[in-house]
Amino acid sequence: MRIMGIDPGTRSVGYGVVDKEGSRLILVACGTIRPRPKETLPARLKTIFEELSSVVREYSPEVVAVEDVFAGKGSKSSIKIGEGRGIALLSAALKDVPVAEYTATKVKMATTGNGHATKEQVKKMVSTILRIQDSRTAEDAADALAIAICHCHRSGKTHGFED
Amino acid sequence: MRIMGIDPGTRSVGYGVVDKEGSRLILVACGTIRPRPKETLPARLKTIFEELSSVVREYSPEVVAVEDVFAGKGSKSSIKIGEGRGIALLSAALKDVPVAEYTATKVKMATTGNGHATKEQVKKMVSTILRIQDSRTAEDAADALAIAICHCHRSGKTHGFED
Repeated sequence: MRIMGIDPGTRSVGYGVVDKEGSRLILVACGTIRPRPKETLPARLKTIFEELSSVVREYSPEVVAVEDVFAGKGSKSSIKIGEGRGIALLSAALKDVPVAEYTATKVKMATTGNGHATKEQVKKMVSTILRIQDSRTAEDAADALAIAICHCHRSGKTHGFED
Repeated sequence: MRIMGIDPGTRSVGYGVVDKEGSRLILVACGTIRPRPKETLPARLKTIFEELSSVVREYSPEVVAVEDVFAGKGSKSSIKIGEGRGIALLSAALKDVPVAEYTATKVKMATTGNGHATKEQVKKMVSTILRIQDSRTAEDAADALAIAICHCHRSGKTHGFED
């Protein structure tokens, strides 16, 4: 099974593609999409959408996994989170790839065994699980890879979106 | 000049296309996109994106105008607003149509002369300004038409997005 994790945003978007073969998880690809910071928001969303769509097209994941977010740091931040999420969900939906969502706590639990793990601990476990040698690789897309790993370990809200 | 106003959402999206000829405003088209309520969020975003893109393609607006939103009623609502906005902005950006944003207060001011006007007052003025006979027409897309009218009256933050 091939899973693509996405860590959405409007300034930087992480993605990670993982194959699950039996109990083994294999890193297929990962990276970060960084639209030019001086671009307008619509132009950045366009870049993000086009690049995410191209990753989905290239790797044909069976599932896209994203973080289920309940709140940002304030309203403005929550709106930004929504804008990024909208583009990520659309890039999967337009290719008819089902979307699964996991809370941050579940992602931390699935990767480190501790729902309150730090970002650093998650990164380290992502590198260990996927046998990533280059620490920068994990750095770039650790959150996205962690969500993909979480999907491999757990069954989540696939297709189960409700407002 | 042809302006398309969008009132974004994840359950219902209003749009309205207006031509400005001299000081005269002419209704070109308006409507509401309503994805099936039982669909998943990604599926609804897909429907909204495809229908908005088709309206942009059909009417070729020179500008798309949307409401500049600062806060929803709580974090969850703000995230939903962002998801809807992301799709609306993308549908313009992918066709290289510039986007202008206006606050609700400016939209009310431009249509009724009162920044604190009620929804009902805005709807009534939209019908008067665009000489709409059928009250249901205005009902469906009044907010989107009001934003388009606002762009005709004011110069706003076109291309001026900042996080």
